[in-house]
Amino acid sequence: MSGEDAPAQQQNAVDQKQETKPSEEPKTEPPKSESPPAGAAEAAATPAAATEKVPEEEAFTYRSLVLTGYGGYDKVKLQVKKGKPALKAGEVLVRVKACGLNFADLLARQGLYDRLPSPPVTPGMECSGVVEAVGEEVTERKVGDKVLVLNRCGLWQEVAAVPASHTFIIPDGMSFEEAAALPVNYVTAYMMLFDFGNLRPNQSILIHAAAGGVGIAATQLCQTVKDVTVFGTASASKHETISQGGVTHPIDYRTKDYVEEVRKISPKGLDIVLDPLGGSDTHKAYNLLKPMGKLITYGAANMLAGQKKNLLAVAKNWYHQFSIHTLSLIQGNKSVCGFHLGYLDGETELISQAMSTILDLYRQGKIKPRIDSTWHLEQVGDAMRKMQERNNIGKVILITEPMPEEEKKEESKKEDKKEEKKKDDKKKDDKKKDDAKKEEKKDDKKKEEPKKEEPKKEEEKKEEPKKEEK
Amino acid sequence: MSGEDAPAQQQNAVDQKQETKPSEEPKTEPPKSESPPAGAAEAAATPAAATEKVPEEEAFTYRSLVLTGYGGYDKVKLQVKKGKPALKAGEVLVRVKACGLNFADLLARQGLYDRLPSPPVTPGMECSGVVEAVGEEVTERKVGDKVLVLNRCGLWQEVAAVPASHTFIIPDGMSFEEAAALPVNYVTAYMMLFDFGNLRPNQSILIHAAAGGVGIAATQLCQTVKDVTVFGTASASKHETISQGGVTHPIDYRTKDYVEEVRKISPKGLDIVLDPLGGSDTHKAYNLLKPMGKLITYGAANMLAGQKKNLLAVAKNWYHQFSIHTLSLIQGNKSVCGFHLGYLDGETELISQAMSTILDLYRQGKIKPRIDSTWHLEQVGDAMRKMQERNNIGKVILITEPMPEEEKKEESKKEDKKEEKKKDDKKKDDKKKDDAKKEEKKDDKKKEEPKKEEPKKEEEKKEEPKKEEK
Repeated sequence: MSGEDAPAQQQNAVDQKQETKPSEEPKTEPPKSESPPAGAAEAAATPAAATEKVPEEEAFTYRSLVLTGYGGYDKVKLQVKKGKPALKAGEVLVRVKACGLNFADLLARQGLYDRLPSPPVTPGMECSGVVEAVGEEVTERKVGDKVLVLNRCGLWQEVAAVPASHTFIIPDGMSFEEAAALPVNYVTAYMMLFDFGNLRPNQSILIHAAAGGVGIAATQLCQTVKDVTVFGTASASKHETISQGGVTHPIDYRTKDYVEEVRKISPKGLDIVLDPLGGSDTHKAYNLLKPMGKLITYGAANMLAGQKKNLLAVAKNWYHQFSIHTLSLIQGNKSVCGFHLGYLDGETELISQAMSTILDLYRQGKIKPRIDSTWHLEQVGDAMRKMQERNNIGKVILITEPMPEEEKKEESKKEDKKEEKKKDDKKKDDKKKDDAKKEEKKDDKKKEEPKKEEPKKEEEKKEEPKKEEK
Repeated sequence: MSGEDAPAQQQNAVDQKQETKPSEEPKTEPPKSESPPAGAAEAAATPAAATEKVPEEEAFTYRSLVLTGYGGYDKVKLQVKKGKPALKAGEVLVRVKACGLNFADLLARQGLYDRLPSPPVTPGMECSGVVEAVGEEVTERKVGDKVLVLNRCGLWQEVAAVPASHTFIIPDGMSFEEAAALPVNYVTAYMMLFDFGNLRPNQSILIHAAAGGVGIAATQLCQTVKDVTVFGTASASKHETISQGGVTHPIDYRTKDYVEEVRKISPKGLDIVLDPLGGSDTHKAYNLLKPMGKLITYGAANMLAGQKKNLLAVAKNWYHQFSIHTLSLIQGNKSVCGFHLGYLDGETELISQAMSTILDLYRQGKIKPRIDSTWHLEQVGDAMRKMQERNNIGKVILITEPMPEEEKKEESKKEDKKEEKKKDDKKKDDKKKDDAKKEEKKDDKKKEEPKKEEPKKEEEKKEEPKKEEK
């Protein structure tokens, strides 16, 4: 499965961190000191490696998404890395099956997220997969464990070395896609609602972007508390879905003033507002709070306008950034909290506790990640676009399974067409383009395979909601 | 008991609000329409009223503390009011036994608390007593009920008309002094710890002014949660008491840097800081927070410097006032909350819920208000001074029971001496003054009565801690 895009067995080093330390490995498993090191079973499964007798660690290749510089969707490139990642004490090597996309990844691509090291770097804060090797001092994970992973970055690739404490055993019955969709959104929603928010029965809450990953997670978690009234913003086309998910009052923020809509139903205001938007929306959120109300701000989605960094949007967001005096808080009996999982790096215990509760809720059938669409690593640009243009309902997932050859050809055809379109966008007559599009869609339908059905479908749908939402 | 300071039965009106509406009263109790209205039993107990045949409501007098203007301790004067307070629908008349002093009362006297109406006005946010009459539509209280009361103001007097919903039945075994000490401090501490603070086992907290009313209440409430580490600031002389009360690490803020002291023991910081100080201490509190930590600011005690409004202290407090950007909150994963019970006026349900839990905890023996000292209404100035100069450990209480005649003489002697001292403070030789003081103390000791032991004792002690704390 790994390395099929690699020009076979070039021996030059590709990446720092990838020195192999086979001499250290036997320490953890002394009986195996003469036999191939842990993980060799899988390495042998890469057929080419065996034939040329190159040391297995060096012959080891894997595909990795790399942010090569700040900018548009095309700045995230699929590369082939060589050499098996070395494991430090306490780390495990995970064969990645699926990865989650998050808003922070979009900000990071534009250079707006300071928790991602400078490019070139592999993004990705969450994934699911199978433990392929364990480093020294790892006692609670073993080869073959199915795990989900939460990490600062580096998970959008086929294998990843991560601290064992950042991995969590996947419950029975949970798919890899679900597992990859869970960590960031559910831990974020959980800690906001139950740590800062202290959500209790009969309370009311406003969830912005209620059809997004955190929005859906938060809505589901609200259902675990009695009689919580959920106001949720989303474009009208998503209302049916979010209502079924538990949003009591969906609000189309594109056509209505959400503050007015909330006040109509809840004149006194709200107990909790989750604010991923920032800027002037934070002010509105604050004013919507009841006494003892909590505003929990966890992002600056308003900074994201377009594919590349939009200085005006960033400046506007800064200009309108919410700043609060304690005297105002005292007189209003209000609370303002900031949350971002990315800055909770060291808080392993806090996160483990939250994760443990979340996985229990999954086992009890009380929560279930909703997958919007799954995409191959090759399609990461489209996956990011889908999220950024707010066309998703639920989680956008990348899978590491390689794209079948025929799909690839299709993709490259599309790429060519995109290029053409860029070059002479205005000159060509519209009718022609329309025809081309229709043809493309027909082709897609013909070549659909059951497994990769979703992204294709979504690809089609994308055109329509965009029009509606302008 | 009431009205003994009144020049007997003058009939001129004293106060707005005090019109009597006997014609309305029979509605609630129709059988009594021909007999004296509710509350008459007690009115008849005022012997003078009966003999002169003045309508009972008008003959009714009661003593009341009135803030006559903003300024020093002497701005709160004991006056006699006439006419029985009329009850609106939903109100009850309470014969007040004991009242609590709060920091807001001190700020209010200086004109620094906007929840107290302009002078002349009767301060007092909490008291305990007995229901003497019930207005229309009151179903849950009856004459004779022992209650504690929480109100925006107006409770430092012998009788008070208050909404029945602001009264709570006193549990068996709780004294009137304890009952008067409970509402403001315990509801404040409770809501800060368990609503905003979301206090949980194994957490750590810093309580400023740990020997004050809220400090002691918060410390006791922390004991209801497993393994909470309490850091508490107080002057050294109070450390033994607060340690016994549950403070794990007492810190003498006068001789040590409390931030350093906390960091020595808890290098990562704290889960919760309760901040009654404001100004630069709020900044320190914020920096002491762990990720997911909560700063709860509930006052501006730093604004109080001296008896009268100190413009420099106020300005300094404003200048240093804490203001926070959401981005800093997000990056720190922190929460900043403001609390003041005085601004929760309308939130009857929230307060009732908190009070109900608090009274249950009292019944279970888990909390017990600590009375620092009790004072007669005549001594309100000294009572306020004691609190403002931080010489109290626990609650400063006023009792409405009149001062025995011999004590009064003693008080007025003291007053005379104070006046003398003021006039020629510098001219008199110090030795003489010292002798006079010693004599005074001897006199006090001779005349001590068991019941009013505490204020007297405290009066004496006051001199010493002051010296120590300079």
